Amino acid sequence: MEDVFKTLSKPLPEFEIKPKKTALLLIDMQRLVDSQPLLEEAVKAGLDKKEAKEALREYDQRVKKAVKNAQKILQACRKKGYDVAHIKMEAQSADPRYTAKINRKSDFIMPPDTERGRFFDEVKPIKGELVFAKTDGGAFTGTNIDFVLRNMDIESIILTGFLTDQCVLATALHAADIGYDVLLVEDACTGTTKGNHEAVIKIAKDTFLKTKTTPELLKAL
Amino acid sequence: MEDVFKTLSKPLPEFEIKPKKTALLLIDMQRLVDSQPLLEEAVKAGLDKKEAKEALREYDQRVKKAVKNAQKILQACRKKGYDVAHIKMEAQSADPRYTAKINRKSDFIMPPDTERGRFFDEVKPIKGELVFAKTDGGAFTGTNIDFVLRNMDIESIILTGFLTDQCVLATALHAADIGYDVLLVEDACTGTTKGNHEAVIKIAKDTFLKTKTTPELLKAL
Amino acid sequence: MEDVFKTLSKPLPEFEIKPKKTALLLIDMQRLVDSQPLLEEAVKAGLDKKEAKEALREYDQRVKKAVKNAQKILQACRKKGYDVAHIKMEAQSADPRYTAKINRKSDFIMPPDTERGRFFDEVKPIKGELVFAKTDGGAFTGTNIDFVLRNMDIESIILTGFLTDQCVLATALHAADIGYDVLLVEDACTGTTKGNHEAVIKIAKDTFLKTKTTPELLKAL
Amino acid sequence: MEDVFKTLSKPLPEFEIKPKKTALLLIDMQRLVDSQPLLEEAVKAGLDKKEAKEALREYDQRVKKAVKNAQKILQACRKKGYDVAHIKMEAQSADPRYTAKINRKSDFIMPPDTERGRFFDEVKPIKGELVFAKTDGGAFTGTNIDFVLRNMDIESIILTGFLTDQCVLATALHAADIGYDVLLVEDACTGTTKGNHEAVIKIAKDTFLKTKTTPELLKAL
Repeated sequence: MEDVFKTLSKPLPEFEIKPKKTALLLIDMQRLVDSQPLLEEAVKAGLDKKEAKEALREYDQRVKKAVKNAQKILQACRKKGYDVAHIKMEAQSADPRYTAKINRKSDFIMPPDTERGRFFDEVKPIKGELVFAKTDGGAFTGTNIDFVLRNMDIESIILTGFLTDQCVLATALHAADIGYDVLLVEDACTGTTKGNHEAVIKIAKDTFLKTKTTPELLKAL
Repeated sequence: MEDVFKTLSKPLPEFEIKPKKTALLLIDMQRLVDSQPLLEEAVKAGLDKKEAKEALREYDQRVKKAVKNAQKILQACRKKGYDVAHIKMEAQSADPRYTAKINRKSDFIMPPDTERGRFFDEVKPIKGELVFAKTDGGAFTGTNIDFVLRNMDIESIILTGFLTDQCVLATALHAADIGYDVLLVEDACTGTTKGNHEAVIKIAKDTFLKTKTTPELLKAL
Repeated sequence: MEDVFKTLSKPLPEFEIKPKKTALLLIDMQRLVDSQPLLEEAVKAGLDKKEAKEALREYDQRVKKAVKNAQKILQACRKKGYDVAHIKMEAQSADPRYTAKINRKSDFIMPPDTERGRFFDEVKPIKGELVFAKTDGGAFTGTNIDFVLRNMDIESIILTGFLTDQCVLATALHAADIGYDVLLVEDACTGTTKGNHEAVIKIAKDTFLKTKTTPELLKAL
Repeated sequence: MEDVFKTLSKPLPEFEIKPKKTALLLIDMQRLVDSQPLLEEAVKAGLDKKEAKEALREYDQRVKKAVKNAQKILQACRKKGYDVAHIKMEAQSADPRYTAKINRKSDFIMPPDTERGRFFDEVKPIKGELVFAKTDGGAFTGTNIDFVLRNMDIESIILTGFLTDQCVLATALHAADIGYDVLLVEDACTGTTKGNHEAVIKIAKDTFLKTKTTPELLKAL
């Protein structure tokens, strides 16, 4: 009984997912989370290349796996008529003032139309799908996605993307708080570290969201 | 180099705190997080009393310590003229429909004027201080606190209270995303478990908020 | 064909009102809109008392009529189980910083527990009804009413109260824009002047809200 | 003393406008407000062409004048380094579910990349300027413009565009309520009718916004 709260509290109930009521959200599935540019940055920052490469290998595998799983989910959602929303990091211009303070403070500026900003090919939007650009962490603070989903009568969201302990977490907490049922696909997202990813799952699961694996979700769609 | 992101990214810069620009937020410092009612619930739920008591002892110490530290901070903030905002869990009535869905789903209803809803004596509001009632996790989704702070030209917040991995986390992420500088006082809050508290600190620190201990903060006020 | 737009555009469709889906909103039905304190202010401001009294007579009749109609609607809504929300002008303290800038700029501060802030007896809240305090014009910008109504699955609102060309207008426009069906009870609200009240009805009707008279509404409840 | 309120209340104070603190907003300056497509619609709707043409002539002159004035303001703002934000009616797709309910109800759907959606050439955006797409009336409810302006430390807005009694009104009220100083350029916007335009100016002026003519503004920039 390490966690008295979990033991005592009624776990969040399961909820039904279905087209027109549930939307798939893909968070920041852009090349900026790719290990290659991170490695280049690391080397530029003076880190030992071999060591950095080693450290990024495990991360890279996690990202690739999440993209692959998100791709399967995306294809299934398209087939079954779920609404799809792609969220991306992108400012309206390179002027730092047009980026949210939280990221401006860390010099994390994403101007339009850069290579780093490109969606991963496996999960890029097609015509008719929603795309939202943000410059902060959470999609619900930084874009008008709530306005759009709400007017569509969307009641629940399937969450995938990057990074579990940053933008995904902020998006999930906010969505849950304003009334959406949130389903986090735990192997279609990953964190800055494996430990942080797992910590978020542990904190969030049954408390403010439900989780499924990709195979479980594919069966439920 | 376990965490390449932390290694590579520029840590969030320090920021100045000062009266009229910085507000102290006390999150859910109410008797509902006290170990005594939790123990009663545990026994009612059929758990072994002795075992539950044991499990809650460590939790209880963390809560008491956080309250004590928050009390010191509150007293100092009052003395120096900082704005103070008390956030509490409280619905406008016992009707479950008046509680946010996220908590209604788990039967977590807090009607007005209950013993469980009382603020801890050490940190209860005095006349002229702001009080916000919410029925969800995050203070910025569930109350009009952003409207109020923004109109006061508040730019940064000092965060204390309960629970680090739930309402404090949701409040911190949201505040940071909409532009507030956030300072989490790591020993004036605590989590459902020690592990979850520490995991949140690890994830949040220098990424979307800064942290200080109570003694460090008292010096900086 | 004075108004080509009205002639061309499809008028907003009628919508059904029913308990649990429709809430009654009473905006600022407080003694502050009463003609008596206005007269006192006028005299204090150096205006001719007789002239001011004359000017306020017509206003006073409009206010009294609106209160009387709102009372009938409130009683009917209570009987039939509609949710009721009372919105009032009230700051958390007399400190001007705790009042929204828009009203602070005009020195319009409403501290708690004043005579001016009292609800009209005819329409004051009873236990279990929602009450929201604001310091600006619109209820949806200045309070968490959207959060509450949305979590209650409220889809439409009946609007009454003061003043048609200020707080009622701001509340109606905002509510309509975020997806609520809005029904303005045209004889249960009034404006700063009769002309302004009528101008708002003309602008709003069938464009972003529907209107009914009190008798029409009482039949439809 | 027709309007006791105006007589008694302290008029909204003047405020300073300056680059980096003030942004220019151009609301819905798109071909959809042009009289030509309106005429075509009118004829399609079975109205007498000559009569409709006559009715639209006066409207057309008002629109053209407002565009011309907005163009002068836009050029001056660009020259002096003011931030510029273009707001437009545009949904992410032709699917009515992707348009806000308020406009979906009236079948007012604006898919991407249509002739009707094009900005007037005189005031179209250039690279680096902000563009926000909305499907409802108010820019602050339907887009993330508040998030962006707030992160830019914008404190006041200059409002131009269409239509005074619809989107401009909703945007102005909301902006004022959340703390922006609002300056409406009364001859750089117009309404569905001249009467409605004038009624809005009368209601709004000195109450929740300040007004200037284009020549007055050009001097003040």
